[in-house]
Amino acid sequence: MVESVVNRTMNSYSESEKATIYRVIRERRDVRTGYLPTLVDDAVLHRLLSAAHHAPSVGFMQPWRFIVIRDLLLRTAVHANFQRANADAASRYTGERGEMYARLRLEGLLEAPQHLCVLCDPLTERGHCLGRNSMPETSAYSVACAIQNLWLAARAEGIGVGWVSILDPAAIKELLRIPPHLELIAYLCFGYVEGFAETPDLERHGWEHRADADALVNADTFGQPYRFSGAQP
Amino acid sequence: MVESVVNRTMNSYSESEKATIYRVIRERRDVRTGYLPTLVDDAVLHRLLSAAHHAPSVGFMQPWRFIVIRDLLLRTAVHANFQRANADAASRYTGERGEMYARLRLEGLLEAPQHLCVLCDPLTERGHCLGRNSMPETSAYSVACAIQNLWLAARAEGIGVGWVSILDPAAIKELLRIPPHLELIAYLCFGYVEGFAETPDLERHGWEHRADADALVNADTFGQPYRFSGAQP
Repeated sequence: MVESVVNRTMNSYSESEKATIYRVIRERRDVRTGYLPTLVDDAVLHRLLSAAHHAPSVGFMQPWRFIVIRDLLLRTAVHANFQRANADAASRYTGERGEMYARLRLEGLLEAPQHLCVLCDPLTERGHCLGRNSMPETSAYSVACAIQNLWLAARAEGIGVGWVSILDPAAIKELLRIPPHLELIAYLCFGYVEGFAETPDLERHGWEHRADADALVNADTFGQPYRFSGAQP
Repeated sequence: MVESVVNRTMNSYSESEKATIYRVIRERRDVRTGYLPTLVDDAVLHRLLSAAHHAPSVGFMQPWRFIVIRDLLLRTAVHANFQRANADAASRYTGERGEMYARLRLEGLLEAPQHLCVLCDPLTERGHCLGRNSMPETSAYSVACAIQNLWLAARAEGIGVGWVSILDPAAIKELLRIPPHLELIAYLCFGYVEGFAETPDLERHGWEHRADADALVNADTFGQPYRFSGAQP
């Protein structure tokens, strides 16, 4: 039995350590304004990317690939790409919702002194396809988990991250010379910030409110509400 | 200018708080053995799901939906589903790799006293499609970010989580009465464990090794290696 040789450790977390972890999860924000011009130096960048690299991945395939973009011409081209995609997106809203959309700040691409393009290589040999015969899409989900690791670490470092999805991914791939088989999972702007908003931007601006978490939980089968016992904090 | 009214806070993190966050990222494991029969109680479950609920989501759409599965018949049926999918997957490997595959433990579905099925509702009105005209797949990535939040919180609580992707998702959806339009993002087993392995199972069993993180980072365009200055820790 292979498992008999496993070196296990409990390494438990104190109440205050747990509180720190819940706190960073709660205080993480999607940041589109208030970026400072200071560059994130290589030591800090390395910590962030290493946090991403310690994400789970299906078959241990580690499909994430990163591009750090600092070049101003490239950043400007990405911003122009956003503007085209955003004009198209804006045209889909009318009336009050359209006015609200026009007021939203949806990117910090020129303000943030660096971007991170996060890719998935679904064809890598690494992992030998384990776990992906039945659910091939899990490689992209592994990359999203890596992004969340990086995002939490960045928050603790005082670095804001904004995920910009209003872009034409095909044009970005061409601009950054990304091979066709790589999937563009996320385009992020990131950098040191003045501070972090207490609530998500889209909540504060009335675009959407936070759902009741309990209403999203089912028991055993879908459609049967999970009844939490007692009052939850 | 809307942003002038933003209530910002720095809420900075001490060195030891940062270390805790990096530590939980590093110590999180995909757990398939060593589950204890103790049920995760509702207060703890609520904290974990609340951590998931505080993930970023495109347009603040909060597309995650959860099913907590404790029913033994359902868990047994999911396990049988795994066995069929795994027999199919195993048949794709031959020789030494096939023998190695046969020795791997890839699920803890009967040992763990509860499962979590995590879904995405890409059709929810919430978020009003913001950010998804150009990249509709981002709703699923938001759900993966939620899973990573939950996974880190679980590690700190002494709770193991195992992501089982060797399953036939269509059959699971039928079994758990999941409406057709919801996407099955992840099927997890979870519960208290004896301890956490120091290295990922697939690394320890020689299936795959950890990639050199630096080799995955590019500068400005793909194919140009990022040169980190100085030695990184």
